[in-house]
This record gives sequence, C-alpha cells and structure tokens, in this order.
Amino acid sequence: MYSIQVQRKSAIPIKRQIYQKIRDQIFTGVLTAGVALPSTRELAEQIKVSRNTVCEAYEMLIAEGFVLHRQGAPTRIAEGLQLETALEKKIEIKVRKKPHYIVDFQTGRPDLKRFPQYLWQQMMHKTTATLQLDDFGYSNPQGLITLRSEISAWLLRSKGLSVQEQDIFISSGATQALHLISNLLGGHGNKIAIEDPCNQGVLKTILNTGCSIEPIPVDEHGIQTELLNKTKVRAVYTTPSHQFPLGGILPAVRRAALVRYAKANEAYLVEDDYDSEFRYLGDPIAPLYAMAPNKVIYIGTFSKTLFPAIRIGYVILPQELQADWCELRLHTDVQNTPFEQAALAEFLRTRKFDRHIRSMKKLYGERRTVLLEALKFHFADTWRSWGDAAGLHLAIEFQKGNFDSDFFGRCKRNGLKITSVDYHGIQKGRHLNKLLLGYGHLEPEEIQKGIGILHSVMKK
Amino acid sequence: MYSIQVQRKSAIPIKRQIYQKIRDQIFTGVLTAGVALPSTRELAEQIKVSRNTVCEAYEMLIAEGFVLHRQGAPTRIAEGLQLETALEKKIEIKVRKKPHYIVDFQTGRPDLKRFPQYLWQQMMHKTTATLQLDDFGYSNPQGLITLRSEISAWLLRSKGLSVQEQDIFISSGATQALHLISNLLGGHGNKIAIEDPCNQGVLKTILNTGCSIEPIPVDEHGIQTELLNKTKVRAVYTTPSHQFPLGGILPAVRRAALVRYAKANEAYLVEDDYDSEFRYLGDPIAPLYAMAPNKVIYIGTFSKTLFPAIRIGYVILPQELQADWCELRLHTDVQNTPFEQAALAEFLRTRKFDRHIRSMKKLYGERRTVLLEALKFHFADTWRSWGDAAGLHLAIEFQKGNFDSDFFGRCKRNGLKITSVDYHGIQKGRHLNKLLLGYGHLEPEEIQKGIGILHSVMKK
Repeated sequence: MYSIQVQRKSAIPIKRQIYQKIRDQIFTGVLTAGVALPSTRELAEQIKVSRNTVCEAYEMLIAEGFVLHRQGAPTRIAEGLQLETALEKKIEIKVRKKPHYIVDFQTGRPDLKRFPQYLWQQMMHKTTATLQLDDFGYSNPQGLITLRSEISAWLLRSKGLSVQEQDIFISSGATQALHLISNLLGGHGNKIAIEDPCNQGVLKTILNTGCSIEPIPVDEHGIQTELLNKTKVRAVYTTPSHQFPLGGILPAVRRAALVRYAKANEAYLVEDDYDSEFRYLGDPIAPLYAMAPNKVIYIGTFSKTLFPAIRIGYVILPQELQADWCELRLHTDVQNTPFEQAALAEFLRTRKFDRHIRSMKKLYGERRTVLLEALKFHFADTWRSWGDAAGLHLAIEFQKGNFDSDFFGRCKRNGLKITSVDYHGIQKGRHLNKLLLGYGHLEPEEIQKGIGILHSVMKK
Repeated sequence: MYSIQVQRKSAIPIKRQIYQKIRDQIFTGVLTAGVALPSTRELAEQIKVSRNTVCEAYEMLIAEGFVLHRQGAPTRIAEGLQLETALEKKIEIKVRKKPHYIVDFQTGRPDLKRFPQYLWQQMMHKTTATLQLDDFGYSNPQGLITLRSEISAWLLRSKGLSVQEQDIFISSGATQALHLISNLLGGHGNKIAIEDPCNQGVLKTILNTGCSIEPIPVDEHGIQTELLNKTKVRAVYTTPSHQFPLGGILPAVRRAALVRYAKANEAYLVEDDYDSEFRYLGDPIAPLYAMAPNKVIYIGTFSKTLFPAIRIGYVILPQELQADWCELRLHTDVQNTPFEQAALAEFLRTRKFDRHIRSMKKLYGERRTVLLEALKFHFADTWRSWGDAAGLHLAIEFQKGNFDSDFFGRCKRNGLKITSVDYHGIQKGRHLNKLLLGYGHLEPEEIQKGIGILHSVMKK
C-alpha cells in the first residue's frame, strides 16, 4: 500500500492512478479484507498530491464496493475480493504477413481506380446536409425511402422490373441479405438447395446460420432443375443471370421449372443477381423475379457496380416475409447508416450511376477481349471458356487439365494468385480441369502478364 | 401475339416492352410451344418500330431460351414454358399508422437535437478525402486502424483502460456485437446466462441466434452472482456499470465472483457498457474488463454518446476468439463502411467527442434533476428511484403500484408512452410496481408535462 507511485505526465488522471493501484493490490492479495487504508490526508502527504484527489479516488473505490467507509472510522478493504491469480498478462500478438502477388485473378472485384471518388465525396457531403433529425436516430430497418424509390426507378429503366418501393429492403450488402434470408427460412429442419459449384463465401454464410443444404449440380446452362424434384427444400439459392462460377445463363425452360417447383413445394427462389449489369453479349437478362414475384426473393448489390465498402445491397421480398425480415434485422444490427444511402439515392437520381455502369461495362468488355486474346495467344485451341458473356470473371477449361494443390503452389511461388472452379465445388473433384479468372480489376498489361505466367507454370 | 402495343413515352425501352409482352404471352399460355413468331420485318411494320428494335427484342428472347431460332426457319416458342397460373398480381399494402404521443419516455435515446450535425458533416467530408483506394474495397472485417487506435486512446484517458488496438473489433453497433458473440459462443448446446430483467432487444438478439438462455435474477445492486453457481454456462451477459433496467452498479464482491466463475467454468463475461459515460454521482465505474481481460468481452457503443444511426460499436475480444470473430463477420455482413469510421476517428482525435460528452452529461444531469423534482412534486414520498446515478433513464418504484395493461392503455389514450420494468422481465410479474423513465431525449418542459400526465392517470 505504501508503495503507490503516480505518473504526473500520464494521460490517466492521478485520482484514477491511485484508484487503480489500490484496486490491483486488492486483487493480487497485497491488501486483504479488513485492512484499513491510510486516511486521505496521510496518503495525500505521502504521495504529494492534493487531499481532494485522494478523496475522489477513495470515493470511486467506495462506489464500486472495493472498500467500506463508515463515518468516523477508517476506510477498510471489503470481503471476498481477492482473485485466485494475479492480474492476467496479455499474450504477444504475431503479425501475419500477407503474401505479395504479381497478378491476382481473384473474382468479384470491381476496378476501384475508376470509381469517381471525388464525385462520391461531393454527393455524400451534399446529401448529409439534407438528412432529417430522425435519420440520425433509430429510423427504419427497411432503409431510406428516397433510396428505395430510386432503386425502384432504376430497376424499371434498366431491367424492366416494376417493383414498388415498399417491397424493397436495404441490407448491408448481399452477404447480409443472404445471412438474414438463411435465418428466416433455414430453421426448424428446413433445407436450402444451393447450386454446386457455388461461391464459397455464399456457402459459408448459409452454413453459418445453422442451415442444412442440398447441393444441386450445375451444368453449362446453370442449375439442373430436373435434379431438384427428388428433394423437398424451403428455398433454392440460384444465380440464373450468370451462374457463379460457371457462368451459365439459365434457360427459360429451367426458369419455368424453378417457378413450378416453388409453387408446388411452398418454397422460395433466392435469386442472387450479383453482376448481371455487366453483360457483353446481348441485352441484360430479365430476372427470374419477373416470372413470379410472390415466390422469388431477389438480391441485388452495389458492391460490384460501385465499390464493395459501400455495404449496400437490397432484397425484393414477397409480402409474407416482410414483417419477419424487419423484426430480424432490428435484432441483428438494426439498420444501415443513412449517409451512404442518401448519397447513393442521389447518385441514382442524377443518373451518375447509369453513366458509371456504361463506362465500366465498356472498360470491362475491353479487358475481357484482352483476356480472351491472351488465352488464345498462349494456349491456342487447347481450352474453352465458360460464362464469358457477362460479369467480372470467366472460367476456362483445359481438356487435359488437372489443377491440384501442387499446381497452385507453383502459381503462388511465381507470383500468380488463381483458383480453380473446384475450389467452389461442394462435391470436390468434378471441376479440377477448370480455372477461374477474375479480370475486372486488372489492367490489360496485368492480364497479359498473368496469362503469360500461367502459361509458363503450365508448361513445367 | 398480334396485340402488341408499345408505349413510346415509357421509361422502359421499346425493345424491352416487346420482349416483355411476348414473354408474358408465353407464360400465360397465349403463345404455346412450337408456335412461330412473325418475322422481325413483319412485326416491325405492324407495330411501327424499326426492324432493329424488334431484332434486339428477339435476341433477348433467344438468349434466355424463350424462343428457338434456326437459320432460315421461323423463330418458334420453346417447350415447357407455360406456368400454371397467369402472372401473379401484387396484393395491396395497408399503411400502418404510428400512434402519436405527447410525451414518450422511451429508454436509450440520446438528444439528437444537441448533436453537432454540421461539425459531423464537415468531419465526414474532410476524412472521406483521406481514404485510400483500398478502403473502398473489401478491406478489413476488424475495422479501420485509425479508429481502433483512437478508441484505444480514449479508453485510456476516460476509463484508465489499457487496450491495444489489435484487441478492438469494430461492429455495426452493440446489437451486432451481441449477435456475433451469441453466434460464436451459443451454439452446440451451450447456454448464455443473462440478467433478469434484461433489455428485451438484447434478449431477442440472443434468442434469435438459437441460443438457450439461463435467466439470473437482479436485485438493486445488479446480477445476483450467488445464483450463478448452480448453473454451467458458456457466457454471462451483464451490465455491471448501470444495470438495465434497474440501474444497479455491481459491487466489487460480485465482480470478483463473476471473474472466479468465468475462470472455474471456462466461461466468458460479456460486459455491455451501454451508457456509463453519463454518470452524475461519483466517477465513471471501472469496467469489469480491467479485472480479467482474458475472460471479459467488453461491448462499447457510440449510439448513446453520439447518435444511433452511426451504427458503430466495438468489442474488446480475448485473443482466442479473434480469428473466429473475423471469419464470422466476413460471412455475416463483411465489415463496416469506412466513412463513418474515419469521421469518428477524427472526432475522437480532435477531442470533439470528449467535449460533446461533457456537454451532454451536463444537459442530461439537469434533466435528471428536473425529473426527480417533478416526481417529488407530484408524488411526494410514495415512490423511490432505482439506478438514477447514471445513464439516460431511471426506474421508479411505487410501494403499492401494480402497473397492468389497463394502466398502460390509459397512459396511451392520454398521450403518454411509458413502459414498466416488468416488460423487460423474463420471469414476468416480479416488477409490476416499477416504471421506466427514459429522459435523456426530453426537454425539461416535456418531462414535467409527462410526469403531470402520469400523475393524473394514476389518480384515476
């Protein structure tokens, strides 16, 4: 007790230092139950601080029950405070080193360098000033009405979808949308059918909610709906506009089969439309949603069209799920922040969004051509591409390819990050001859260099 | 087929209108499998649009598999497309009417009118410009390092807590922190002990993740730790600095008992420090975390100190939970947006935050006095207050009170929104004589008016 030293230059107020030192001595058993503390005057003199400071420290100890104070008697240590061991020490943290790649063909990454950051900053600034007082409170788990109404207008002009703003629900990206949907539909022993192969992140998001899944194999057109009829599920997760990762556009016959399945089995179709805005051959694909608004949960995202950190996605929900969604969102993370929502609404309203998509589509289209040409140059006709009509990635199949961990190790050592389609497979071993190439975020030279490295690794 | 009409003034491009009308006729069975479409030239003449427009519409139908095209032969409707029923109609939505209250004593609401909105807007603008390209991508589920480092500095200067920035994890508010913690700790048959009464929102957040709970009764000092020893749980949820809703400050003896329990049972203590910044009597309470950093998960929030829609909270996590937390966050909603994080870091760095808390603490302290005086004026000494030393609410107990649904109905009809402590009870019926009064967001006149209404309702 008599060894209290205070640091006068510390950021911690002196009264708090005194409080902490006494408290620590109690915990470690230096000061035991019943022991009297020195009077405030004594301690103040001893450690050369004002008596008032010591009084405040003692009051903190009294308020929290570390010591007991009775008028006219010395202040004493309370009972039952000593901990078994002394205060724990922190373990040292190891810093993880990120590997450095020369070319990284990761999928699902837009080119951030081309995003009009300054314009976005202006929009955020402008729209923040227009927010109402209520927007700073707990406002609405559904999202800002201005944003929902602009999304509704955009869905009409870009996809011909007529959706009312009250059926649109803003989420923190498509990932959260899927997290909430899995929580809503997956409990009570209900299963969710998912495409196989399927994005590994999507798979983990669904499995993390404790859902059981039923994998349905995918061919070059998309999910094989005839295999669905053998099973009874509560929901079917599908990417009909551009299957991830194989890239198929689901044909109308299979779309109709999905809708019939949903109606016959009281199931929902979860349509993840993650990148159909970038379509290089033909027009955008009409969402499955248009065929059966009461059976389809449509998920859209701005992570690929604008930038991932915006954390805004949306779902179009059938009416009977809407109240449960809001209730669940309220107790998951309440709502999105208003600032990005307001700025995005303005971005949509002023058609800056449409303009950005047009220019990015042109850019990505050029990169797609560069990629296909580089593949032709290095690999002649030993490969074929899958799903290159849209999106930010494509898959390539080599007739005699067998891409194993040894191969990916060699790629890594040569500075190339690349994954196989099989990585996204649920049943492994079916797609070992296909590689995935995300190209949207890469400059033409990087794409060419990357395919060059791939070629040299494959020759070995 | 020959009834296609296009709207030239529509926001939907004409080619898409043609596409949609044909598609709808297929779904509804007007056009059946095998039927030939008119040639593009014929249709173009008929509906007075360019042939190119019709070609584009047909290409969309071909791409999506609605019709089949063979060189030199007419384009025909594909098989298996008709749906059982015609396209579904949307059900009309009823607009819900919010009840209007004269005075709303809801809890946990800061006064938004006093938040320096303009200053915040400036900070957002300034810091958005400093964000790096990487901050716009998928960056870090842990949160911006600048923010974590400012929170670390603030914890030291305000609570004397020494926490390294690598142990701090940003979340979308305290609600999400709790959602993730319940998911991490509550599975596999593990139970979580929670205080009874406990905030109903907190209870739902925990239960929604599928956790089992073990309610532990609370007295005026806080959770009754001696009742904990009969049970084995994976985590104890507690509000030791200001119990919600009863307001007790957990005495040191019980804190030590919690830590001993956690060590003996390999359990964690989840410390929800939701409003301890506003303490009117004595100094801020030292967090439980200080006693056992390896056993305590500390949850902090900026919803009460700044504004709820900021959606930033944080947790201090023991090391062994950190990797799992990041993995889970990645597959729940990935990360927070960078804009609010950067602005908040600047708000903290420039001490605007400390200043705001000081001025709000003064304001809330005055309102607390107004409330206590109004209660004294109307109810003399028939009541006592619980937990009025801190926070934005207090509870009042009437010896002979028995607040039932009939009473709350009368309050509502008189324009008063108020809840009982019993509303937050897990075992109902134990706190029917206590009311909860959130006063932080109310002007002095509103508080006085509200207590006046309460008095007149109680007289009847």
